[in-house]
Amino acid sequence: MARPVIDRTAVVESLLTAAEQLIRERGAVSVSIGDIAAACGMSPSNVYRYLPSREALWEAIAERWFRELNEAMDAVMALSLPAREKAKLFYTRRLAIKRRRFIDDPDLFRNYIALGERHSDVVEGYLDLADHNFSVIVSEAIAEGAIPDMPIDDAVKLFGLMTLSFCSPAAIISNLANATETNLALAIDVIFDGLCANADRTTGAVAATGLRLVG
Amino acid sequence: MARPVIDRTAVVESLLTAAEQLIRERGAVSVSIGDIAAACGMSPSNVYRYLPSREALWEAIAERWFRELNEAMDAVMALSLPAREKAKLFYTRRLAIKRRRFIDDPDLFRNYIALGERHSDVVEGYLDLADHNFSVIVSEAIAEGAIPDMPIDDAVKLFGLMTLSFCSPAAIISNLANATETNLALAIDVIFDGLCANADRTTGAVAATGLRLVG
Repeated sequence: MARPVIDRTAVVESLLTAAEQLIRERGAVSVSIGDIAAACGMSPSNVYRYLPSREALWEAIAERWFRELNEAMDAVMALSLPAREKAKLFYTRRLAIKRRRFIDDPDLFRNYIALGERHSDVVEGYLDLADHNFSVIVSEAIAEGAIPDMPIDDAVKLFGLMTLSFCSPAAIISNLANATETNLALAIDVIFDGLCANADRTTGAVAATGLRLVG
Repeated sequence: MARPVIDRTAVVESLLTAAEQLIRERGAVSVSIGDIAAACGMSPSNVYRYLPSREALWEAIAERWFRELNEAMDAVMALSLPAREKAKLFYTRRLAIKRRRFIDDPDLFRNYIALGERHSDVVEGYLDLADHNFSVIVSEAIAEGAIPDMPIDDAVKLFGLMTLSFCSPAAIISNLANATETNLALAIDVIFDGLCANADRTTGAVAATGLRLVG
Protein backbone atom coordinates (compact mmCIF):
# COMPACT_ATOMS: atom_id res chain seq x y z
CA MET A 1 0.00 0.00 0.00
CA ALA A 2 1.29 3.44 -0.89
CA ARG A 3 2.32 5.62 1.99
CA PRO A 4 -0.46 8.21 2.58
CA VAL A 5 0.36 11.64 1.23
CA ILE A 6 0.21 14.14 4.05
CA ASP A 7 -0.61 17.68 3.03
CA ARG A 8 1.90 19.49 5.17
CA THR A 9 0.32 22.90 4.57
CA ALA A 10 -3.11 21.61 5.58
CA VAL A 11 -1.73 20.10 8.80
CA VAL A 12 0.02 23.35 9.72
CA GLU A 13 -3.17 25.29 8.97
CA SER A 14 -5.19 23.03 11.26
CA LEU A 15 -2.58 23.41 14.00
CA LEU A 16 -2.68 27.19 13.61
CA THR A 17 -6.48 27.19 13.66
CA ALA A 18 -6.33 25.28 16.95
CA ALA A 19 -3.70 27.72 18.26
CA GLU A 20 -5.91 30.63 17.29
CA GLN A 21 -8.86 29.17 19.17
CA LEU A 22 -6.68 28.78 22.28
CA ILE A 23 -5.37 32.37 21.91
CA ARG A 24 -8.96 33.59 21.54
CA GLU A 25 -10.02 31.79 24.73
CA ARG A 26 -7.04 32.30 27.02
CA GLY A 27 -4.81 34.97 25.57
CA ALA A 28 -1.45 34.19 24.12
CA VAL A 29 0.64 33.82 27.27
CA SER A 30 -0.31 30.31 28.22
CA VAL A 31 -0.57 28.54 24.85
CA SER A 32 2.00 25.76 24.48
CA ILE A 33 2.78 23.23 21.77
CA GLY A 34 1.36 20.62 24.15
CA ASP A 35 -1.99 22.45 24.33
CA ILE A 36 -2.14 22.66 20.55
CA ALA A 37 -1.34 18.96 20.24
CA ALA A 38 -4.10 18.10 22.70
CA ALA A 39 -6.61 20.32 20.87
CA CYS A 40 -5.78 18.55 17.57
CA GLY A 41 -5.65 15.02 19.01
CA MET A 42 -1.98 14.72 18.02
CA SER A 43 1.06 13.81 20.07
CA PRO A 44 3.37 16.74 20.93
CA SER A 45 6.24 15.02 19.13
CA ASN A 46 4.12 14.82 15.98
CA VAL A 47 3.27 18.54 16.28
CA TYR A 48 7.00 19.29 16.58
CA ARG A 49 7.48 17.78 13.10
CA TYR A 50 5.45 20.72 11.76
CA LEU A 51 6.24 23.42 14.28
CA PRO A 52 9.70 22.53 15.64
CA SER A 53 9.81 25.24 18.36
CA ARG A 54 7.79 27.92 20.09
CA GLU A 55 9.60 30.46 17.87
CA ALA A 56 8.43 28.57 14.78
CA LEU A 57 4.91 28.64 16.20
CA TRP A 58 4.94 32.43 16.75
CA GLU A 59 6.41 32.96 13.29
CA ALA A 60 3.72 30.81 11.70
CA ILE A 61 1.01 32.67 13.63
CA ALA A 62 2.48 36.02 12.52
CA GLU A 63 2.65 34.81 8.91
CA ARG A 64 -1.04 33.89 9.11
CA TRP A 65 -2.00 37.25 10.70
CA PHE A 66 -0.10 39.23 8.05
CA ARG A 67 -1.04 37.05 5.05
CA GLU A 68 -4.24 38.90 4.07
CA LEU A 69 -2.62 42.26 4.89
CA ASN A 70 0.36 41.45 2.67
CA GLU A 71 -1.82 40.19 -0.15
CA ALA A 72 -3.78 43.45 -0.03
CA MET A 73 -0.48 45.37 -0.05
CA ASP A 74 0.87 43.38 -3.03
CA ALA A 75 -2.35 43.98 -4.94
CA VAL A 76 -2.04 47.74 -4.39
CA MET A 77 1.64 47.73 -5.38
CA ALA A 78 0.69 46.13 -8.72
CA LEU A 79 -1.81 48.86 -9.61
CA SER A 80 -1.07 51.55 -12.18
CA LEU A 81 -2.36 54.62 -10.41
CA PRO A 82 -1.09 58.09 -9.53
CA ALA A 83 1.09 57.81 -6.42
CA ARG A 84 -1.34 59.73 -4.22
CA GLU A 85 -4.20 57.33 -4.99
CA LYS A 86 -1.88 54.36 -4.59
CA ALA A 87 -0.77 55.70 -1.21
CA LYS A 88 -4.37 56.04 -0.09
CA LEU A 89 -5.19 52.47 -1.08
CA PHE A 90 -1.94 51.23 0.44
CA TYR A 91 -3.06 52.53 3.81
CA THR A 92 -6.84 52.28 3.67
CA ARG A 93 -7.11 48.68 2.43
CA ARG A 94 -5.09 47.42 5.37
CA LEU A 95 -7.04 49.61 7.78
CA ALA A 96 -10.26 48.09 6.43
CA ILE A 97 -8.93 44.57 7.12
CA LYS A 98 -7.90 45.45 10.68
CA ARG A 99 -11.21 47.16 11.44
CA ARG A 100 -13.18 44.21 10.08
CA ARG A 101 -11.11 41.76 12.10
CA PHE A 102 -11.59 43.69 15.32
CA ILE A 103 -15.33 44.06 14.78
CA ASP A 104 -15.66 40.36 13.89
CA ASP A 105 -13.73 39.07 16.89
CA PRO A 106 -12.65 41.71 19.44
CA ASP A 107 -11.18 39.26 21.98
CA LEU A 108 -8.98 37.54 19.42
CA PHE A 109 -7.87 40.90 18.05
CA ARG A 110 -6.89 42.17 21.53
CA ASN A 111 -5.04 38.96 22.30
CA TYR A 112 -3.17 39.21 18.99
CA ILE A 113 -2.10 42.75 19.94
CA ALA A 114 -0.70 41.44 23.23
CA LEU A 115 1.01 38.59 21.35
CA GLY A 116 2.57 41.04 18.91
CA GLU A 117 3.90 43.18 21.77
CA ARG A 118 5.62 40.18 23.30
CA HIS A 119 7.10 39.06 19.95
CA SER A 120 7.99 42.42 18.45
CA ASP A 121 11.07 40.90 16.78
CA VAL A 122 8.77 38.71 14.64
CA VAL A 123 6.44 41.63 13.82
CA GLU A 124 9.35 43.96 12.95
CA GLY A 125 10.12 42.19 9.67
CA TYR A 126 6.55 42.68 8.45
CA LEU A 127 6.64 46.38 9.33
CA ASP A 128 9.95 46.72 7.47
CA LEU A 129 8.38 45.08 4.43
CA ALA A 130 5.51 47.59 4.50
CA ASP A 131 8.01 50.46 4.81
CA HIS A 132 9.97 49.05 1.87
CA ASN A 133 6.84 48.89 -0.28
CA PHE A 134 5.78 52.37 0.73
CA SER A 135 9.22 53.70 -0.18
CA VAL A 136 8.49 52.54 -3.75
CA ILE A 137 5.28 54.60 -3.75
CA VAL A 138 7.21 57.59 -2.38
CA SER A 139 9.75 57.36 -5.19
CA GLU A 140 6.90 57.19 -7.69
CA ALA A 141 5.37 60.27 -6.03
CA ILE A 142 8.66 62.15 -6.32
CA ALA A 143 9.11 61.07 -9.95
CA GLU A 144 5.57 62.30 -10.74
CA GLY A 145 6.16 65.57 -8.92
CA ALA A 146 3.28 64.71 -6.57
CA ILE A 147 5.58 65.50 -3.66
CA PRO A 148 8.85 67.45 -3.75
CA ASP A 149 12.19 65.71 -4.00
CA MET A 150 13.26 64.65 -0.50
CA PRO A 151 15.08 61.77 1.18
CA ILE A 152 12.79 58.79 0.66
CA ASP A 153 13.36 57.34 4.12
CA ASP A 154 12.37 60.65 5.68
CA ALA A 155 9.13 60.74 3.73
CA VAL A 156 8.36 57.13 4.68
CA LYS A 157 9.00 57.95 8.34
CA LEU A 158 6.85 61.08 8.21
CA PHE A 159 3.89 59.17 6.72
CA GLY A 160 4.39 56.51 9.39
CA LEU A 161 4.52 59.03 12.22
CA MET A 162 1.45 60.90 10.96
CA THR A 163 -0.74 57.85 10.31
CA LEU A 164 -0.12 55.82 13.48
CA SER A 165 -3.75 56.32 14.61
CA PHE A 166 -4.84 54.38 11.51
CA CYS A 167 -2.09 51.73 11.43
CA SER A 168 -1.37 50.60 14.97
CA PRO A 169 -3.97 47.95 15.89
CA ALA A 170 -4.04 49.24 19.50
CA ALA A 171 -4.56 52.82 18.31
CA ILE A 172 -7.31 51.80 15.87
CA ILE A 173 -9.40 50.06 18.51
CA SER A 174 -8.90 52.83 21.07
CA ASN A 175 -10.39 55.34 18.62
CA LEU A 176 -12.52 53.18 16.33
CA ALA A 177 -15.07 55.93 15.62
CA ASN A 178 -12.43 58.24 14.12
CA ALA A 179 -9.84 55.82 12.75
CA THR A 180 -11.88 55.33 9.58
CA GLU A 181 -10.83 54.84 5.98
CA THR A 182 -12.37 58.19 4.99
CA ASN A 183 -10.39 60.04 7.64
CA LEU A 184 -7.23 58.16 6.71
CA ALA A 185 -7.64 59.15 3.05
CA LEU A 186 -8.09 62.75 4.24
CA ALA A 187 -4.90 62.47 6.32
CA ILE A 188 -2.97 61.17 3.28
CA ASP A 189 -4.26 64.09 1.20
CA VAL A 190 -3.21 66.52 3.94
CA ILE A 191 0.30 65.02 4.01
CA PHE A 192 0.72 65.11 0.21
CA ASP A 193 -0.58 68.68 0.03
CA GLY A 194 1.37 69.76 3.09
CA LEU A 195 4.63 68.39 1.69
CA CYS A 196 4.07 70.24 -1.59
CA ALA A 197 3.26 73.49 0.18
CA ASN A 198 6.28 73.10 2.45
CA ALA A 199 8.56 72.81 -0.57
CA ASP A 200 7.30 76.16 -1.82
CA ARG A 201 8.14 77.99 1.38
CA THR A 202 11.31 79.97 1.46
CA THR A 203 11.45 80.83 5.14
CA GLY A 204 10.79 79.10 8.44
CA ALA A 205 12.06 76.09 10.29
CA VAL A 206 10.78 73.49 7.86
CA ALA A 207 12.35 75.02 4.81
CA ALA A 208 15.54 75.42 6.80
CA THR A 209 15.59 71.72 7.63
CA GLY A 210 14.99 70.86 3.98
CA LEU A 211 12.19 68.52 5.09
CA ARG A 212 14.78 66.34 6.73
CA LEU A 213 13.50 64.42 9.71
CA VAL A 214 15.62 64.28 12.81
CA GLY A 215 16.12 60.88 14.37
CA MET B 1 -0.30 75.29 73.57
CA ALA B 2 -1.68 76.12 70.13
CA ARG B 3 -2.79 73.21 68.05
CA PRO B 4 -0.09 72.51 65.43
CA VAL B 5 -1.00 73.77 61.98
CA ILE B 6 -0.95 70.90 59.52
CA ASP B 7 -0.17 71.85 55.96
CA ARG B 8 -2.71 69.69 54.19
CA THR B 9 -1.11 70.17 50.77
CA ALA B 10 2.30 69.17 52.09
CA VAL B 11 0.91 66.01 53.68
CA VAL B 12 -0.85 65.02 50.44
CA GLU B 13 2.34 65.69 48.48
CA SER B 14 4.36 63.46 50.80
CA LEU B 15 1.72 60.72 50.50
CA LEU B 16 1.83 61.02 46.70
CA THR B 17 5.63 60.95 46.71
CA ALA B 18 5.46 57.71 48.68
CA ALA B 19 2.82 56.35 46.28
CA GLU B 20 5.05 57.24 43.34
CA GLN B 21 7.98 55.38 44.86
CA LEU B 22 5.79 52.29 45.30
CA ILE B 23 4.50 52.58 41.72
CA ARG B 24 8.07 52.90 40.49
CA GLU B 25 9.13 49.76 42.36
CA ARG B 26 6.14 47.45 41.90
CA GLY B 27 3.93 48.86 39.20
CA ALA B 28 0.56 50.34 39.96
CA VAL B 29 -1.54 47.21 40.41
CA SER B 30 -0.59 46.34 43.93
CA VAL B 31 -0.32 49.75 45.60
CA SER B 32 -2.90 50.20 48.37
CA ILE B 33 -3.67 52.97 50.83
CA GLY B 34 -2.26 50.65 53.52
CA ASP B 35 1.08 50.42 51.68
CA ILE B 36 1.26 54.19 51.39
CA ALA B 37 0.45 54.58 55.07
CA ALA B 38 3.22 52.13 56.00
CA ALA B 39 5.71 53.91 53.75
CA CYS B 40 4.91 57.26 55.43
CA GLY B 41 4.76 55.90 58.97
CA MET B 42 1.11 56.92 59.24
CA SER B 43 -1.95 54.90 60.21
CA PRO B 44 -4.26 53.98 57.30
CA SER B 45 -7.12 55.85 58.99
CA ASN B 46 -4.98 58.98 59.11
CA VAL B 47 -4.14 58.59 55.39
CA TYR B 48 -7.86 58.29 54.66
CA ARG B 49 -8.33 61.80 56.09
CA TYR B 50 -6.30 63.06 53.11
CA LEU B 51 -7.09 60.48 50.46
CA PRO B 52 -10.55 59.16 51.37
CA SER B 53 -10.68 56.37 48.75
CA ARG B 54 -8.66 54.57 46.10
CA GLU B 55 -10.45 56.73 43.52
CA ALA B 56 -9.27 59.85 45.34
CA LEU B 57 -5.75 58.42 45.29
CA TRP B 58 -5.78 57.78 41.51
CA GLU B 59 -7.25 61.25 40.90
CA ALA B 60 -4.55 62.87 43.02
CA ILE B 61 -1.85 60.88 41.20
CA ALA B 62 -3.30 61.91 37.83
CA GLU B 63 -3.48 65.54 38.96
CA ARG B 64 0.20 65.35 39.88
CA TRP B 65 1.15 63.69 36.56
CA PHE B 66 -0.71 66.28 34.52
CA ARG B 67 0.23 69.33 36.64
CA GLU B 68 3.43 70.25 34.77
CA LEU B 69 1.83 69.37 31.42
CA ASN B 70 -1.16 71.61 32.16
CA GLU B 71 1.04 74.45 33.38
CA ALA B 72 2.99 74.24 30.13
CA MET B 73 -0.29 74.23 28.20
CA ASP B 74 -1.64 77.25 30.12
CA ALA B 75 1.60 79.14 29.48
CA VAL B 76 1.28 78.50 25.73
CA MET B 77 -2.39 79.51 25.71
CA ALA B 78 -1.44 82.87 27.26
CA LEU B 79 1.08 83.71 24.51
CA SER B 80 0.35 86.22 21.76
CA LEU B 81 1.63 84.38 18.73
CA PRO B 82 0.38 83.43 15.27
CA ALA B 83 -1.81 80.34 15.62
CA ARG B 84 0.61 78.10 13.75
CA GLU B 85 3.47 78.90 16.14
CA LYS B 86 1.14 78.57 19.11
CA ALA B 87 0.01 75.15 17.85
CA LYS B 88 3.63 74.03 17.55
CA LEU B 89 4.45 75.09 21.11
CA PHE B 90 1.16 73.61 22.37
CA TYR B 91 2.28 70.21 21.13
CA THR B 92 6.07 70.34 21.39
CA ARG B 93 6.33 71.65 24.98
CA ARG B 94 4.30 68.75 26.29
CA LEU B 95 6.25 66.28 24.15
CA ALA B 96 9.47 67.66 25.65
CA ILE B 97 8.13 67.07 29.18
CA LYS B 98 7.09 63.49 28.38
CA ARG B 99 10.40 62.66 26.69
CA ARG B 100 12.37 64.08 29.62
CA ARG B 101 10.28 62.13 32.11
CA PHE B 102 10.76 58.86 30.25
CA ILE B 103 14.51 59.38 29.87
CA ASP B 104 14.84 60.36 33.56
CA ASP B 105 12.88 57.40 34.90
CA PRO B 106 11.79 54.78 32.32
CA ASP B 107 10.31 52.33 34.83
CA LEU B 108 8.13 54.93 36.50
CA PHE B 109 7.03 56.21 33.08
CA ARG B 110 6.05 52.72 31.92
CA ASN B 111 4.17 52.03 35.14
CA TYR B 112 2.33 55.34 34.80
CA ILE B 113 1.26 54.31 31.28
CA ALA B 114 -0.17 51.07 32.67
CA LEU B 115 -1.86 53.02 35.47
CA GLY B 116 -3.41 55.42 32.96
CA GLU B 117 -4.74 52.54 30.88
CA ARG B 118 -6.48 51.07 33.92
CA HIS B 119 -7.95 54.43 34.95
CA SER B 120 -8.83 55.85 31.55
CA ASP B 121 -11.90 57.58 33.03
CA VAL B 122 -9.61 59.76 35.17
CA VAL B 123 -7.27 60.49 32.23
CA GLU B 124 -10.16 61.31 29.89
CA GLY B 125 -10.92 64.64 31.58
CA TYR B 126 -7.36 65.83 31.06
CA LEU B 127 -7.45 64.86 27.38
CA ASP B 128 -10.76 66.73 26.99
CA LEU B 129 -9.16 69.79 28.58
CA ALA B 130 -6.29 69.67 26.07
CA ASP B 131 -8.79 69.31 23.19
CA HIS B 132 -10.74 72.25 24.54
CA ASN B 133 -7.60 74.41 24.66
CA PHE B 134 -6.54 73.32 21.19
CA SER B 135 -9.98 74.22 19.84
CA VAL B 136 -9.24 77.81 20.93
CA ILE B 137 -6.02 77.74 18.88
CA VAL B 138 -7.95 76.32 15.91
CA SER B 139 -10.48 79.15 16.08
CA GLU B 140 -7.63 81.64 16.21
CA ALA B 141 -6.09 79.91 13.16
CA ILE B 142 -9.38 80.17 11.27
CA ALA B 143 -9.81 83.83 12.27
CA GLU B 144 -6.26 84.58 11.04
CA GLY B 145 -6.86 82.70 7.79
CA ALA B 146 -3.99 80.35 8.70
CA ILE B 147 -6.29 77.42 7.98
CA PRO B 148 -9.55 77.47 6.02
CA ASP B 149 -12.90 77.78 7.75
CA MET B 150 -13.97 74.32 8.88
CA PRO B 151 -15.81 72.71 11.78
CA ILE B 152 -13.54 73.30 14.78
CA ASP B 153 -14.12 69.85 16.29
CA ASP B 154 -13.12 68.23 12.99
CA ALA B 155 -9.86 70.15 12.89
CA VAL B 156 -9.11 69.28 16.54
CA LYS B 157 -9.77 65.60 15.77
CA LEU B 158 -7.60 65.67 12.65
CA PHE B 159 -4.66 67.19 14.54
CA GLY B 160 -5.17 64.59 17.26
CA LEU B 161 -5.30 61.70 14.79
CA MET B 162 -2.22 62.91 12.89
CA THR B 163 -0.04 63.61 15.96
CA LEU B 164 -0.68 60.49 18.05
CA SER B 165 2.95 59.34 17.59
CA PHE B 166 4.05 62.47 19.46
CA CYS B 167 1.29 62.64 22.10
CA SER B 168 0.56 59.11 23.31
CA PRO B 169 3.15 58.22 25.98
CA ALA B 170 3.20 54.60 24.77
CA ALA B 171 3.74 55.70 21.16
CA ILE B 172 6.49 58.14 22.14
CA ILE B 173 8.56 55.53 23.95
CA SER B 174 8.07 52.93 21.23
CA ASN B 175 9.57 55.32 18.67
CA LEU B 176 11.71 57.64 20.79
CA ALA B 177 14.27 58.28 18.02
CA ASN B 178 11.66 59.75 15.68
CA ALA B 179 9.05 61.18 18.07
CA THR B 180 11.10 64.36 18.49
CA GLU B 181 10.05 67.96 18.91
CA THR B 182 11.62 68.87 15.53
CA ASN B 183 9.64 66.20 13.72
CA LEU B 184 6.47 67.17 15.58
CA ALA B 185 6.91 70.81 14.50
CA LEU B 186 7.34 69.55 10.93
CA ALA B 187 4.15 67.49 11.25
CA ILE B 188 2.23 70.55 12.49
CA ASP B 189 3.54 72.56 9.52
CA VAL B 190 2.48 69.78 7.15
CA ILE B 191 -1.04 69.75 8.65
CA PHE B 192 -1.44 73.55 8.46
CA ASP B 193 -0.13 73.65 4.90
CA GLY B 194 -2.09 70.56 3.88
CA LEU B 195 -5.35 72.01 5.20
CA CYS B 196 -4.75 75.26 3.28
CA ALA B 197 -3.94 73.40 0.09
CA ASN B 198 -6.98 71.16 0.50
CA ALA B 199 -9.23 74.19 0.73
CA ASP B 200 -7.97 75.36 -2.67
CA ARG B 201 -8.81 72.13 -4.40
CA THR B 202 -11.99 71.97 -6.37
CA THR B 203 -12.11 68.27 -7.14
CA GLY B 204 -11.41 65.05 -5.34
CA ALA B 205 -12.69 63.26 -2.28
CA VAL B 206 -11.47 65.77 0.26
CA ALA B 207 -13.05 68.75 -1.38
CA ALA B 208 -16.22 66.72 -1.74
CA THR B 209 -16.30 66.00 1.99
CA GLY B 210 -15.67 69.67 2.73
CA LEU B 211 -12.89 68.64 5.13
CA ARG B 212 -15.51 67.06 7.33
CA LEU B 213 -14.23 64.13 9.32
CA VAL B 214 -16.38 61.06 9.50
CA GLY B 215 -16.90 59.56 12.94
